[in-house]
Amino acid sequence: NNNNKINSDMKQALTIDQAMQNPQALAALQDKIDNVSHSASIMDSLPKSVKRRVNALKNLQVNSTHIEAKFYKEVHELERKYSALYQPLFDKRRNIVSGEVEPTDEECEWQSDHEDEAALAEDLKKKAAIEEKTEDANEEKPKGIPEFWLTIFRSVDMLSDMLQEHDEPILKHLQDIKVIFSGPDQPMSFTLEFHFEPNEYFTNTVLTKVYKMKSEPDAEDPFSFEGPEIIDCEGCEIDWHKGKDVTVKTIKKKQKHKGRGTARVITKQVPNDSFFNFFNPIKVSPDKELDEDSEYTLATDFEIGHFFRERIIPRAVLYFTGEALEDDENEEDEDDEEEGDSKVSVDLDHYLN
Amino acid sequence: NNNNKINSDMKQALTIDQAMQNPQALAALQDKIDNVSHSASIMDSLPKSVKRRVNALKNLQVNSTHIEAKFYKEVHELERKYSALYQPLFDKRRNIVSGEVEPTDEECEWQSDHEDEAALAEDLKKKAAIEEKTEDANEEKPKGIPEFWLTIFRSVDMLSDMLQEHDEPILKHLQDIKVIFSGPDQPMSFTLEFHFEPNEYFTNTVLTKVYKMKSEPDAEDPFSFEGPEIIDCEGCEIDWHKGKDVTVKTIKKKQKHKGRGTARVITKQVPNDSFFNFFNPIKVSPDKELDEDSEYTLATDFEIGHFFRERIIPRAVLYFTGEALEDDENEEDEDDEEEGDSKVSVDLDHYLN
Repeated sequence: NNNNKINSDMKQALTIDQAMQNPQALAALQDKIDNVSHSASIMDSLPKSVKRRVNALKNLQVNSTHIEAKFYKEVHELERKYSALYQPLFDKRRNIVSGEVEPTDEECEWQSDHEDEAALAEDLKKKAAIEEKTEDANEEKPKGIPEFWLTIFRSVDMLSDMLQEHDEPILKHLQDIKVIFSGPDQPMSFTLEFHFEPNEYFTNTVLTKVYKMKSEPDAEDPFSFEGPEIIDCEGCEIDWHKGKDVTVKTIKKKQKHKGRGTARVITKQVPNDSFFNFFNPIKVSPDKELDEDSEYTLATDFEIGHFFRERIIPRAVLYFTGEALEDDENEEDEDDEEEGDSKVSVDLDHYLN
Repeated sequence: NNNNKINSDMKQALTIDQAMQNPQALAALQDKIDNVSHSASIMDSLPKSVKRRVNALKNLQVNSTHIEAKFYKEVHELERKYSALYQPLFDKRRNIVSGEVEPTDEECEWQSDHEDEAALAEDLKKKAAIEEKTEDANEEKPKGIPEFWLTIFRSVDMLSDMLQEHDEPILKHLQDIKVIFSGPDQPMSFTLEFHFEPNEYFTNTVLTKVYKMKSEPDAEDPFSFEGPEIIDCEGCEIDWHKGKDVTVKTIKKKQKHKGRGTARVITKQVPNDSFFNFFNPIKVSPDKELDEDSEYTLATDFEIGHFFRERIIPRAVLYFTGEALEDDENEEDEDDEEEGDSKVSVDLDHYLN
């Protein structure tokens, strides 16, 4: 619902002049005008005495948004508490993925509970059986679950869109992704930690991305408050080994000497597409307006951060096997059919870490 | 996202045979098959030793869903706690709506904080000014905010779809809608209370609708767990005054006597479209399969219950003025653009009462 919330917040920062040159902002402005006229028309049809009372209700409603903000802060605290409860499971996952720990037979027992599904899968298994045996014959014992996180990156659209061929060998060294919540007395935020085993690309063992959140109604527009939202993010410096930085590429350029007319070749470093640009996001600053492209890039970045936190980290194995992917796709289809904003069952949204 | 969750749960209750005759269920079955084959293909390409470890991760994931269920129970508790904090504001709203309390001038002060909006609205106000004056001249002092809830019913699509002309005079007597959460030791549920002033239609002062929820992962399909969902609902008996029941209509029918060939007119009571059928929902029972129509009706009912709880009750005045309607519509548009399931800002969803 709200991935465009960022957009709309940014739009508020645009001046009317700028808005006129920006189709998206123009549409948002139109919405505002429609909104005002709709609201105005109802309010204006009311006798003064009734209009007064409606304004009193609107003031009560503003009070409500402040209670709501407190509620969301408590939910954030609950999330912190639960993050400690999930952690032992996530640690175990990391140890199994890296091969540090070999799970017991009991821990590996898995039965498809749906008998019909099992039957359906049986056929496929038979077909795959030959393949499996040859692999066993090769007898190169794999350690842990090779390419666990890379497989997830490849299969989740939002991530594979960013993934470049040169990123893949690096992401093979990714061993864990964690989310850390801000403490009770800090401004609300969460940090994604990408833990790497020692590798030939960079010296960092952890790459971080902090997402700063806001859970306060906007004084200018209190009724748009719908809970915490991401307002900014911060990456980290990657200490690339010499010649290994995939976020830049070297291009050669002929340069003519103006006077003499002789040419020489110079090399120049330019930005290169890479997932690792995730750690060098666009900076939001109050003095600088973002252009439409940057706005879009940042909105996508916030969405990805949210998706790591809400879906990928808590249920990584289901993205690895593809089970969660099917769910997401089904949900997407369902979205189109949905009427209004209501949902009968709860979204995980921010409420799961 | 999840309004179809109910559907999908119901689909699980259908037999394969029934599913084959039901296009929606067939699609769900196809999804399941796709899901299995996708998951099977990845799993089958893995060496046995790795597959074992992935199964261990899946078992950890099942543990996660149980922690998640506990988390949602605590969120429900938080909602109960906050419902007490909102209540004084809602009580004040009710008193202003009914005219029991006249708000002070200070309480009624409302300034559009957006200066440009104010300017835009100014024109409209001027146009409406004449209308307003004539109303004042009529000098029939309105009590409270007349037709407050009825106006909301008229303007929210989901409700106006149910609203019949004969419901409107009854709903003019609706004075408040409340949500009551189940206590900590009770099965999770919420009750919608519709409070009416004394009226000529029925003797009840409160009509109730209970929505029963489930916040437990399904043992058969733990990974589909996404938080609490509505699983059943219960209405209440309406004690209609004689001849006032709008949920039935009397039709006249000619009946021929088989032997004699003489005809007589009999009258018969048949169900009639009305919002008040909301208090007589379809019963879910484990032994009885629902047909497709009933399934759809029930899914819509759950959605409406959820919408009352999440949106209408907490922000009624914004539906009255139309401000919330614009938001909902914008959000709907945005849904289409959205990629995947991620949201940057939180939905109110179940987390607001």
